[in-house]
Amino acid sequence: MILVVNSGSSSIKFSLYEYKNNNDIEKLASGMAEQIKVNGKIIITYQGNKHEIDISLPDHKVAIEAILSKLDELKIIKDIKDIQGVGYRVVHGGTISKSSIIDEKVHKQIQDSSKLAPLHNPPALLVIDKFKEFLPHSKHVACFDTAYHQTMPERNYIYPVNIEWYKKYDVRKYGFHGTSFNYINKKFEEIVGKEKNNLIVCHLGNGASICSIKEGKSFDTTMGLTPLAGIMMGSRSGDVDPSIINYMCTSLNKSPNEINEMLNNNSGLLGISGVSSDIRYVIEGYNKNDKMCTLAIEIYTQKIANFIIQMINQQNQKIDAIIFTAGIGENSQIVVEKVVGKLPLLNISVDQELNNKKYEDYIKINTPTSKIDIYKIRTNEEIMICKDVITFLKK
Amino acid sequence: MILVVNSGSSSIKFSLYEYKNNNDIEKLASGMAEQIKVNGKIIITYQGNKHEIDISLPDHKVAIEAILSKLDELKIIKDIKDIQGVGYRVVHGGTISKSSIIDEKVHKQIQDSSKLAPLHNPPALLVIDKFKEFLPHSKHVACFDTAYHQTMPERNYIYPVNIEWYKKYDVRKYGFHGTSFNYINKKFEEIVGKEKNNLIVCHLGNGASICSIKEGKSFDTTMGLTPLAGIMMGSRSGDVDPSIINYMCTSLNKSPNEINEMLNNNSGLLGISGVSSDIRYVIEGYNKNDKMCTLAIEIYTQKIANFIIQMINQQNQKIDAIIFTAGIGENSQIVVEKVVGKLPLLNISVDQELNNKKYEDYIKINTPTSKIDIYKIRTNEEIMICKDVITFLKK
Repeated sequence: MILVVNSGSSSIKFSLYEYKNNNDIEKLASGMAEQIKVNGKIIITYQGNKHEIDISLPDHKVAIEAILSKLDELKIIKDIKDIQGVGYRVVHGGTISKSSIIDEKVHKQIQDSSKLAPLHNPPALLVIDKFKEFLPHSKHVACFDTAYHQTMPERNYIYPVNIEWYKKYDVRKYGFHGTSFNYINKKFEEIVGKEKNNLIVCHLGNGASICSIKEGKSFDTTMGLTPLAGIMMGSRSGDVDPSIINYMCTSLNKSPNEINEMLNNNSGLLGISGVSSDIRYVIEGYNKNDKMCTLAIEIYTQKIANFIIQMINQQNQKIDAIIFTAGIGENSQIVVEKVVGKLPLLNISVDQELNNKKYEDYIKINTPTSKIDIYKIRTNEEIMICKDVITFLKK
Repeated sequence: MILVVNSGSSSIKFSLYEYKNNNDIEKLASGMAEQIKVNGKIIITYQGNKHEIDISLPDHKVAIEAILSKLDELKIIKDIKDIQGVGYRVVHGGTISKSSIIDEKVHKQIQDSSKLAPLHNPPALLVIDKFKEFLPHSKHVACFDTAYHQTMPERNYIYPVNIEWYKKYDVRKYGFHGTSFNYINKKFEEIVGKEKNNLIVCHLGNGASICSIKEGKSFDTTMGLTPLAGIMMGSRSGDVDPSIINYMCTSLNKSPNEINEMLNNNSGLLGISGVSSDIRYVIEGYNKNDKMCTLAIEIYTQKIANFIIQMINQQNQKIDAIIFTAGIGENSQIVVEKVVGKLPLLNISVDQELNNKKYEDYIKINTPTSKIDIYKIRTNEEIMICKDVITFLKK
């Protein structure tokens, strides 16, 4: 069995997979420990039943102990040694280019990258250390959001700042959502039965980024040193005039860290609309002709279109598909329709009926005359992490 | 006679024009006071002769007195009352949409906009006040770098940040180089004998920005709240992940103001190449296959191409021309060639011979098969300011 773990500062999400010899992967159970350090709750879904257990979770160690003992109690696992591998989503891996067994060197790299992802890497490390303690017989594998983007050429990851900032402080574009982009790329290969595709993948969730995939590899992406950069998001600004930070530090008498927080948590769709960082509520306002919700949706979709057109121009290759994925990309017909409508230079179009149609794991939604194919594909970062762990189990 | 004034913190540049009744404008003299507050020097060019005078200039008031007395001494002006109008380049005019007589209200607006242009507006105001004192009979007109961009639609000037920052602290895109874009737009009208053109104008000087002109009006531009935003420049970064500021404040233990200064003065072509903010030296390195100079030129031209393609896509109109102007745009064949080469989606091309050809005030440089016309046009912000003053003299 393989456990896939995604940890935050106050939560640990997990899924348990069974790996069968015929290469089939079956999801056995999933769940989460939440409100760690606050109250504490464990939720486990198994065989269609949802078990909710209120339990005091003073720290991550107790939470992990509780998860493992509940998996045992519910008879989901018979012997803890059946968990052969654990895969962890780690946000920042610096320049590590693939999923890796967490040895001392990798452990140190995750620690070193904490300065670049201070909210994400430290809790991930904490959880890794505890699971290693409880599951000493398992293989522990870190899967990095940054890894897939290590194929970007220098001219796409170097910032026009003092080069010493790169050399001494690692300031460069890293990019995120790599596990998702990697999954979508492989899934597209399966769909069309062809490798080395040229794709524009729009991962539009609450966090959102676009990846320009050239011949199967990340060529450019919108997020940067951190996940604040690029397109406008639910509560993040994306790229803005960098002078705004100094100006607002002075205007509000706040520290750059506080202004950075506001750009992360108080901006984007929420910032303009004043309604919500959840696009469903902003679309509700848009449908009622609310002025600020409409403005938010127009700016949001224009910024996505801006990056798509510049990425397609820079690739200078025949593009195999534009793909929408993640919460908004998979489900919001209006966002997909508006983004495609804001790309007149490409002569592409979406079939309204297909865009509104229910679908399983993917659907092709362009009209027959569209110059580029357009897909919605459901992403699955967990299965990607699970598969990466399996490759290590086979070694 | 009309005096056109462009002032910095330690210099005052000026040009003196004669306005003839048949609408002809003739430049009589030009010059500058430099090293104000340091040593002091006045340079005046008149009838082909360059006069350099070393003179102590402890402040702007003394500098202005000295300029006026030298113009008298050299018999360039007979009577100070012959200066009927003075036009001032003012960087930030907030939401003022045209050149304006400097009355109390306009004076206050320039003062209020100082928070948005702390290095530029205060010395401009100082110089305005002094000239008004010495030339009480003249009309004094402020011409704003921001004015031409006031036609941008809301969706292009609102940032995806908390809307309160816009309402309370005026955080929005203003755009700069407006006098230059306005000049180029009018010049292009003259060239083709047609109004309301759709243009992409690349003003590439040491500071640089691009304007998307739709039907003769500014529709979008790359600079933002301040002149730091947009494309990479000589020593400015342009847009980067906004998180870099907080990250570098922590890494270098510096204030956001200090990091902002580094993004303005130590980045861009200079930052990557380590050689110079003057592109001529970076191109020298590029021609010798210097790695970092090559990287700087590739990133610089790619970022220009990225904005051009997204602006053309957003206009969704037939584009009448792509125009290069200002120091680099008018003179660097290699930059023009590389930018056009990085726009494969447009099917445009430059005729090598025309690109290398000497020209007076403008030249059309595209090949006959190019899908969009490409021009180099010499900008002239001074004459634009002079003409704006004349319209007020006629009233």
